[in-house]
Amino acid sequence: MRPSGRSFNEMREVSFETGVNRYAEGSCLVKFGNTHVLCTASWDESVPPWMRNSGKGWVTAEYNMLPRATHTRGRRERDKGPGGRTQEIQRLIGRSLRAVVDMQALGERQILIDCDVIQADGGTRTASITGAYVALRQAVEWAKSNGIIKNDPITDTVAAISCGLYNGSPVVDLDYDEDSSAQADANFVFTGSGGIVEVQGTAEGDPFSEEQFTTLLSLARRACDELTQKQKETA
Amino acid sequence: MRPSGRSFNEMREVSFETGVNRYAEGSCLVKFGNTHVLCTASWDESVPPWMRNSGKGWVTAEYNMLPRATHTRGRRERDKGPGGRTQEIQRLIGRSLRAVVDMQALGERQILIDCDVIQADGGTRTASITGAYVALRQAVEWAKSNGIIKNDPITDTVAAISCGLYNGSPVVDLDYDEDSSAQADANFVFTGSGGIVEVQGTAEGDPFSEEQFTTLLSLARRACDELTQKQKETA
Amino acid sequence: MRPSGRSFNEMREVSFETGVNRYAEGSCLVKFGNTHVLCTASWDESVPPWMRNSGKGWVTAEYNMLPRATHTRGRRERDKGPGGRTQEIQRLIGRSLRAVVDMQALGERQILIDCDVIQADGGTRTASITGAYVALRQAVEWAKSNGIIKNDPITDTVAAISCGLYNGSPVVDLDYDEDSSAQADANFVFTGSGGIVEVQGTAEGDPFSEEQFTTLLSLARRACDELTQKQKETA
Amino acid sequence: MRPSGRSFNEMREVSFETGVNRYAEGSCLVKFGNTHVLCTASWDESVPPWMRNSGKGWVTAEYNMLPRATHTRGRRERDKGPGGRTQEIQRLIGRSLRAVVDMQALGERQILIDCDVIQADGGTRTASITGAYVALRQAVEWAKSNGIIKNDPITDTVAAISCGLYNGSPVVDLDYDEDSSAQADANFVFTGSGGIVEVQGTAEGDPFSEEQFTTLLSLARRACDELTQKQKETA
Amino acid sequence: MRPSGRSFNEMREVSFETGVNRYAEGSCLVKFGNTHVLCTASWDESVPPWMRNSGKGWVTAEYNMLPRATHTRGRRERDKGPGGRTQEIQRLIGRSLRAVVDMQALGERQILIDCDVIQADGGTRTASITGAYVALRQAVEWAKSNGIIKNDPITDTVAAISCGLYNGSPVVDLDYDEDSSAQADANFVFTGSGGIVEVQGTAEGDPFSEEQFTTLLSLARRACDELTQKQKETA
Amino acid sequence: MRPSGRSFNEMREVSFETGVNRYAEGSCLVKFGNTHVLCTASWDESVPPWMRNSGKGWVTAEYNMLPRATHTRGRRERDKGPGGRTQEIQRLIGRSLRAVVDMQALGERQILIDCDVIQADGGTRTASITGAYVALRQAVEWAKSNGIIKNDPITDTVAAISCGLYNGSPVVDLDYDEDSSAQADANFVFTGSGGIVEVQGTAEGDPFSEEQFTTLLSLARRACDELTQKQKETA
Repeated sequence: MRPSGRSFNEMREVSFETGVNRYAEGSCLVKFGNTHVLCTASWDESVPPWMRNSGKGWVTAEYNMLPRATHTRGRRERDKGPGGRTQEIQRLIGRSLRAVVDMQALGERQILIDCDVIQADGGTRTASITGAYVALRQAVEWAKSNGIIKNDPITDTVAAISCGLYNGSPVVDLDYDEDSSAQADANFVFTGSGGIVEVQGTAEGDPFSEEQFTTLLSLARRACDELTQKQKETA
Repeated sequence: MRPSGRSFNEMREVSFETGVNRYAEGSCLVKFGNTHVLCTASWDESVPPWMRNSGKGWVTAEYNMLPRATHTRGRRERDKGPGGRTQEIQRLIGRSLRAVVDMQALGERQILIDCDVIQADGGTRTASITGAYVALRQAVEWAKSNGIIKNDPITDTVAAISCGLYNGSPVVDLDYDEDSSAQADANFVFTGSGGIVEVQGTAEGDPFSEEQFTTLLSLARRACDELTQKQKETA
Repeated sequence: MRPSGRSFNEMREVSFETGVNRYAEGSCLVKFGNTHVLCTASWDESVPPWMRNSGKGWVTAEYNMLPRATHTRGRRERDKGPGGRTQEIQRLIGRSLRAVVDMQALGERQILIDCDVIQADGGTRTASITGAYVALRQAVEWAKSNGIIKNDPITDTVAAISCGLYNGSPVVDLDYDEDSSAQADANFVFTGSGGIVEVQGTAEGDPFSEEQFTTLLSLARRACDELTQKQKETA
Repeated sequence: MRPSGRSFNEMREVSFETGVNRYAEGSCLVKFGNTHVLCTASWDESVPPWMRNSGKGWVTAEYNMLPRATHTRGRRERDKGPGGRTQEIQRLIGRSLRAVVDMQALGERQILIDCDVIQADGGTRTASITGAYVALRQAVEWAKSNGIIKNDPITDTVAAISCGLYNGSPVVDLDYDEDSSAQADANFVFTGSGGIVEVQGTAEGDPFSEEQFTTLLSLARRACDELTQKQKETA
Repeated sequence: MRPSGRSFNEMREVSFETGVNRYAEGSCLVKFGNTHVLCTASWDESVPPWMRNSGKGWVTAEYNMLPRATHTRGRRERDKGPGGRTQEIQRLIGRSLRAVVDMQALGERQILIDCDVIQADGGTRTASITGAYVALRQAVEWAKSNGIIKNDPITDTVAAISCGLYNGSPVVDLDYDEDSSAQADANFVFTGSGGIVEVQGTAEGDPFSEEQFTTLLSLARRACDELTQKQKETA
Repeated sequence: MRPSGRSFNEMREVSFETGVNRYAEGSCLVKFGNTHVLCTASWDESVPPWMRNSGKGWVTAEYNMLPRATHTRGRRERDKGPGGRTQEIQRLIGRSLRAVVDMQALGERQILIDCDVIQADGGTRTASITGAYVALRQAVEWAKSNGIIKNDPITDTVAAISCGLYNGSPVVDLDYDEDSSAQADANFVFTGSGGIVEVQGTAEGDPFSEEQFTTLLSLARRACDELTQKQKETA
């Protein structure tokens, strides 16, 4: 039995609210239950120095938690630089989005994604990826409707979900209560057409078996299909 | 004529939405027109080391702008530490709130205020102070209703507003368009009973006269009276 | 009664000694009683990158306290970067000086002011501004007499003084003893012709009234007139 | 055809040299072909502050590359702090080792693993984990033979290997040439008894399929069995 | 022929002015020609944590150059931490002073020396050591006359001088002009009774011979005897 | 009697192993007894910005200790930047090597030396200099045999040794046991033809006499002659 009463393959209620920032070219407030992430996409008509004259564009992401996003207040990272966990997550978000963007079609420009976690109840990285896609989609629509680009550089959708072993059983979309006592924790990133972009699985206590891992993979696949559906309805 | 069409003594539409964070003991999303600041108040049953055994409490604040709060994306301060402007603002917020809290009555505990600017259209420091008071009020109510404190340590309300000389004329509550071309910029913090907590006036171009400064002071006083009224209706 | 025996509107003995550094283009050791600040002005025939090709110059300032300037030894800021107070003060010094310099007349060059506090007995920021003006004046004279510039870019003098409420009464030019127990502390920057460049007033304990604030403003005005007179006699 | 001429399921020559540091309680120079990592295990009779009085021990790891471990010289991280990649890897090493240590049996003491890459030809993180286990094993033997601990806290062996898609085909133990042009890159950490400790798979270009991923998993499993065998022969 | 017209074994004019800081327990403004260093000695009735309960005291030093001490303005170190040269010099000053203090006689207390270079014309480290001794002496006199210590912990005087090869010839007390074109540069620290505390010699261009080095040593010895004499007349 | 049983003028066993890094243009594992330093020389066809168009080259060095090089594990410097001791040593290594390189003959290119201490038993800086010369020699041979340079820019060999007063007697090549209780510690850098590049002598306890210092100088000279011989046999 899950603390939230959800069945093993049931995600939390997911919603996307777009246009939440009047300055950003794309923006989306994504909610996975009580996990709320504000995603903005900033269009930048330049690329980092090392990409100049390559004819290619770039998509990158930053991730941050507001200090009181969590049960107890955390320290702001600006006093010590972004920690390893933050960097790991923001690199994951960036890689996931780049997997569905044709950099040649984008041309020499950059899209910067900011994922600021307003409230955190587990699964902030998967909510960030899923919401960031929607903000990215909005920014590309903005660029198209303003005649900045002609061809759509987005080649597919992308979404992410966590799975894990809770009380020995596989469950999908762990909230904080489950996450903090799960034996295994895995994050999966899928494209809309079913390709795997990223798999990350970690045994928190005892190692898990190949069979258990395969079950988590299937659960994640089905959840991402649902997320893809919702993304398409939104953007 | 002001860019927004407002009259010289007309503030932007102001609103306070409380209870916007399920974990924080007090929270308030304050809006001064398109300036939106998320304020949380975190109750901490300990004080900084230098205050231990003093029998007194402490109230402190942190201020931050999300990177895409502004027209063009700014760099996160975590890569370089909080800048001088950030520190100046957060110290101002802290001082303003402490002016209306009886530290003896609070007892040896600390209230940490976080002001995260979601969207910035001028006046973020004055909106922060005004909203932070509401979050602080909520946190104190929470503590009282949970039996943590008996006596109310808050002695008065506190609110803040900016004034300035725009096209040579005094105006109240400058938005970004006005702020970026004002000849003088002043911030005032008043208590609900009309005491001055802080005055900061700076000539951006030519120095201003004593008479002009006195006019700004009156404008600010009247605007803060309105804000006080709204704060009392909210909290 | 003031600890020093001064009357409420009496400044400490003020002196300016120029030419105290054989390398700097301008230099001045300013003393406000036991507060001693070494001010140097360094002429730089270049401007910061963001000002190039603007045809305009720049004036900026750095402020620092020697570790044993105070009663007990303080820690050097180089181990942790300049703190918020330091940054706030040096920005104030820079703004105050820029208010009396015509950047177009200065041309694309920079004057860097260094204010190093040798001994601190209250009022270091106001002594710094007042002494920095003299060092700036010297540097401009140097540039004129060396044929580097023809027209004088300085449009007015500038001076600063602190006022406050001590034992409930308004007093001018607070020393450390008064400053550490004042109810209100305000700094004023005036040009020689009586314009206000900056006003900063803070209630340390109870808020103060508009009337009290107006009295402080008058006291400051008269003190700055005296400082202006001395500056003109020196430089 | 692989650049090295190896067959798809053939690892590079692997060797472990123990006792290479006269001061460390455990040490091992591990070689996976031209990838050489110096692993030391330092025994510390104290635990981090947050673990005191828990009755439990801790195992942690640091990872570093010498500047000329690579084809072109890299910059030392001490000038900028450990980067995200470094932190990600050293956390992975730490987690992998902790999965096979019974912290209760270890008692309140800490084992610090240092993995310094002397020469890097791909797969430094998997070589580090595999060699670190041997150093850890040595340190535990040292503690047992010196009567510091009685019961062996190590519950299993642990080893790691990389797999990937090179020219569309699954291969094991990628060297630098393969790694820099692989379409997919995955790292697997297995215990000696076949449990999965960690799975990390990333599509570098196009997403990969579930079937491809399953093949990589099998390849890794078999390679780790071989590594386990060699570890047992060594330690 | 030396640029200053001095003979090869002639030091610049040296002076010590004591009591230049009203708060410091000991202070001395030392001048070696145009090199001016403000030295303060701060008495601290505590020792660093690692010395507690040792019954012994400590003497340590910090060295700093004001930004405009030199011909062209330097950057303040607070923006980047003390550089290697600064650390090297301040460790040298501390070692030199500790060589003439009996830490047991001092007891568990610390004397902190600050050497702030006001104007630099070569030889700032040797002037600092020589002036720091005088400030230290003053602080010990202060402690004795205030009954804080009974026995004098200072066992000898200490002084320092630079020597070098200029145009192939040995000269003493190099000024900036000589220092910047010397072939060899050496610093010597002697006690009043003629013991060597520190020798540092560096070939800037071609290596020098053992014979040349011996000549520099003799020159330094005689100069330090003169400095010792002046120190004794002052303190 | 020395702890190691060596006679006063007997160095530890010294060896040089070249070609230990397959990527570096020059490399040498130098051993002075149990002190082991891995030296690499990286050839860089560019110079630092401030040397461009000077027609001259540059040689620079970095020094680092692996955390478990010592009896107890030290903290990695990357978490706090290179300390003063590290900077002092690496500047010494750089200066020593530059004393035997004709920068004009080298041309506009840079050789970067890395000295990473694998195991430390005293004398790491002298071993580093001596081994770094061998790596430098290898890199120059590589450049000559690849037609990158024609003329040999190396003008002489360079080697270094420590001497000190142990139990009142002069000894050469101190190991850790001697170094930690020596009354005086001196490092000498000689060229192969007998010129002095650097002399550094420090009294750890009581000052030493000029006569004692002269004895150390002679001991060092003879030891460096031996090292020079071995270097020539190796490279």
